[in-house]
Amino acid sequence: MFGKYLVRVRDRMPLIHNITNYVTANDTANILLACGARPIMSDEPDEAEDITSICSGLVINIGTLNKMTIEAMFRAGKRANELGNPVVLDPVGAGASRLRTETGMMLMEKIKPTAVRGNMSEIKSLAFACGSTKGVDADIDDLATEENLERSIQFVTDFARQNNVITAATGAIDLVSDGRKCFVIRGGAAEMGGVTGIGCQLSAMMTAFLAASVSEPLEAAAASVALMGLAGEIGLSNMADNEGNASYRNRIIDAVWNMTDEILTEGEKFEIYER
Amino acid sequence: MFGKYLVRVRDRMPLIHNITNYVTANDTANILLACGARPIMSDEPDEAEDITSICSGLVINIGTLNKMTIEAMFRAGKRANELGNPVVLDPVGAGASRLRTETGMMLMEKIKPTAVRGNMSEIKSLAFACGSTKGVDADIDDLATEENLERSIQFVTDFARQNNVITAATGAIDLVSDGRKCFVIRGGAAEMGGVTGIGCQLSAMMTAFLAASVSEPLEAAAASVALMGLAGEIGLSNMADNEGNASYRNRIIDAVWNMTDEILTEGEKFEIYER
Amino acid sequence: MFGKYLVRVRDRMPLIHNITNYVTANDTANILLACGARPIMSDEPDEAEDITSICSGLVINIGTLNKMTIEAMFRAGKRANELGNPVVLDPVGAGASRLRTETGMMLMEKIKPTAVRGNMSEIKSLAFACGSTKGVDADIDDLATEENLERSIQFVTDFARQNNVITAATGAIDLVSDGRKCFVIRGGAAEMGGVTGIGCQLSAMMTAFLAASVSEPLEAAAASVALMGLAGEIGLSNMADNEGNASYRNRIIDAVWNMTDEILTEGEKFEIYER
Repeated sequence: MFGKYLVRVRDRMPLIHNITNYVTANDTANILLACGARPIMSDEPDEAEDITSICSGLVINIGTLNKMTIEAMFRAGKRANELGNPVVLDPVGAGASRLRTETGMMLMEKIKPTAVRGNMSEIKSLAFACGSTKGVDADIDDLATEENLERSIQFVTDFARQNNVITAATGAIDLVSDGRKCFVIRGGAAEMGGVTGIGCQLSAMMTAFLAASVSEPLEAAAASVALMGLAGEIGLSNMADNEGNASYRNRIIDAVWNMTDEILTEGEKFEIYER
Repeated sequence: MFGKYLVRVRDRMPLIHNITNYVTANDTANILLACGARPIMSDEPDEAEDITSICSGLVINIGTLNKMTIEAMFRAGKRANELGNPVVLDPVGAGASRLRTETGMMLMEKIKPTAVRGNMSEIKSLAFACGSTKGVDADIDDLATEENLERSIQFVTDFARQNNVITAATGAIDLVSDGRKCFVIRGGAAEMGGVTGIGCQLSAMMTAFLAASVSEPLEAAAASVALMGLAGEIGLSNMADNEGNASYRNRIIDAVWNMTDEILTEGEKFEIYER
Repeated sequence: MFGKYLVRVRDRMPLIHNITNYVTANDTANILLACGARPIMSDEPDEAEDITSICSGLVINIGTLNKMTIEAMFRAGKRANELGNPVVLDPVGAGASRLRTETGMMLMEKIKPTAVRGNMSEIKSLAFACGSTKGVDADIDDLATEENLERSIQFVTDFARQNNVITAATGAIDLVSDGRKCFVIRGGAAEMGGVTGIGCQLSAMMTAFLAASVSEPLEAAAASVALMGLAGEIGLSNMADNEGNASYRNRIIDAVWNMTDEILTEGEKFEIYER
């Protein structure tokens, strides 16, 4: 079922405003191009509204936030809300500093994200206003596993419903819920944890998918998650001798570039839980 | 004829001051190294003059401009003008926000760029103080094509003459004019549009070419445009199975690294129009 | 002897706080992951102490310093000192501007770095409060060579002793001293100079090695230098037809990813000089 959401991105080529970190901005731009969208990066407050106004979606990623870019996040976010454009919040490192946790929570409160995507620790930091986040990776106790799956689904679904936001907690098992339904998506590869910025790239693609399918946001968000996981699997299978995480990074983006809707639909591995 | 300009870059190894965006800074640094130049990135106003003073050229790229870096652009630009060093302006996204359009126009007015390189929409935004730029890509109505070629040449040549600046409007067909002559360069590959930052990389290389051939700026600028196009063609021909835009990005820079003056001269495809 | 220090990084997976430049931040993050550490990038003063407090090491890289990030460097540095965490200073471009030279010297004075890693010109700029640094590369007169080796060892050892800091001056021959002993490490490849950010990546890995072996800082620092050199050699030997500096960049990180302690120990080429 996910292939058609990719087709829409390629048909509509949404322009996506990225307020993001400088660590992964290049990969984020290239993966947006790979999936058929178009990126623009801008984090100056004085042009935030202008840039958002010509775009079809906004991703706010707090990976290297600073006081200037935080202002741009709020200004762009409000403008995107006014326009009815999808906004995705990626609360990178929420829980790792008070500034990140508070900024993430304020963004949830003052602007209305369409979706929030993070690892389980980051989502928990937003939920509980504190965190055990260890840097930008999820705390091991927070990971969704087969053992705690039911509890994890419950948490993500509750968070989504209480905050009225599509919630994607990604990891070995990816959970995407709108507060009623929860997609449980199995895919990806453990080696993706060895590449910086996979989460950032996914958040940007999710914005493009939401922008191209505004009437089916849950399915579109889940499709982007499935795409990233499958690209991770295909990229891994394309690795040549002596390659490592730097080449893997390229191969994942390449796999998105070469993805077709048929391959995506054939490769999808998910279940849907309903409350 | 273009090969000799590459030879000069490799002989003189000009140090290039980059005030540029954080999205493509890494690729920009690596392509400068690939063509034989040396990069330094700096956008803090308080060191702008110092850094420019030890360099042979300055590229000002407004791709992720902010109030701090705008100040650095003016300070470095004025110093480069005093030193008689070439300055290349890349008005990324001019037309996409008032700040970008106005900053681009102010830079044209207050400092004297040797060359401006952008897509046709960006150049038109500088010309008409407004724009239909869609993000960082050219508007489809603005593209130079075989059908509107004569009109496009006229526009670029007029802009160059009126502003006394070498003007490079790049796209499927690249036009480079000093206001009298106009190089029409055919080269490159449509797939280059799937890689972020090709334009940024070209602007940086153009600065290196200008710095190494100060007495022949039009030819040097055109040579850098021809080099980027040919590298795009060679990079594409080197693509292996399952590769996509991320690998292509590497293969383009690799092609510059492996370029020789003979290959460049043999691969050149251009005509010259004179007023 | 160096293999065991790599093993410790992989066992302890230290989280490293990077205050670094936006040019090479992505490669820096990926090489930290490749050697077994975990990166977090943050340069906002208001979260500097928080981020450092959850980390095991801090690298301060002044490659694209600005007034905001300089404040973060001092705040994070002081906090890391209080915690007893290793701090590595990478004085990128010291000597190229007054701001860089003075910031580097102030960081040496106000915080206590465990190690400083730069090219010979950068170290000399810190030593003599001025510099002949040509951009971010070492001046050719400054390079350690077989001819001036004794004098270079003397300089690095003296600098280390006088400043009470492990000093790594890297280039064709790498020198790492704690003021008493000096490792002379031969390795690497000239082609590494064609890839931007190799030094930045090494400084980050050095921080991870120091964090994982706090009781043997000199040996840990030397091990990271040996690892980078060997990765450069292995990466070069893995280059395929038509590849250049962009692919080489990936192959170096890949080589770190695939490095084992046995390969590292077998590949080490060093002597130790004692005063």
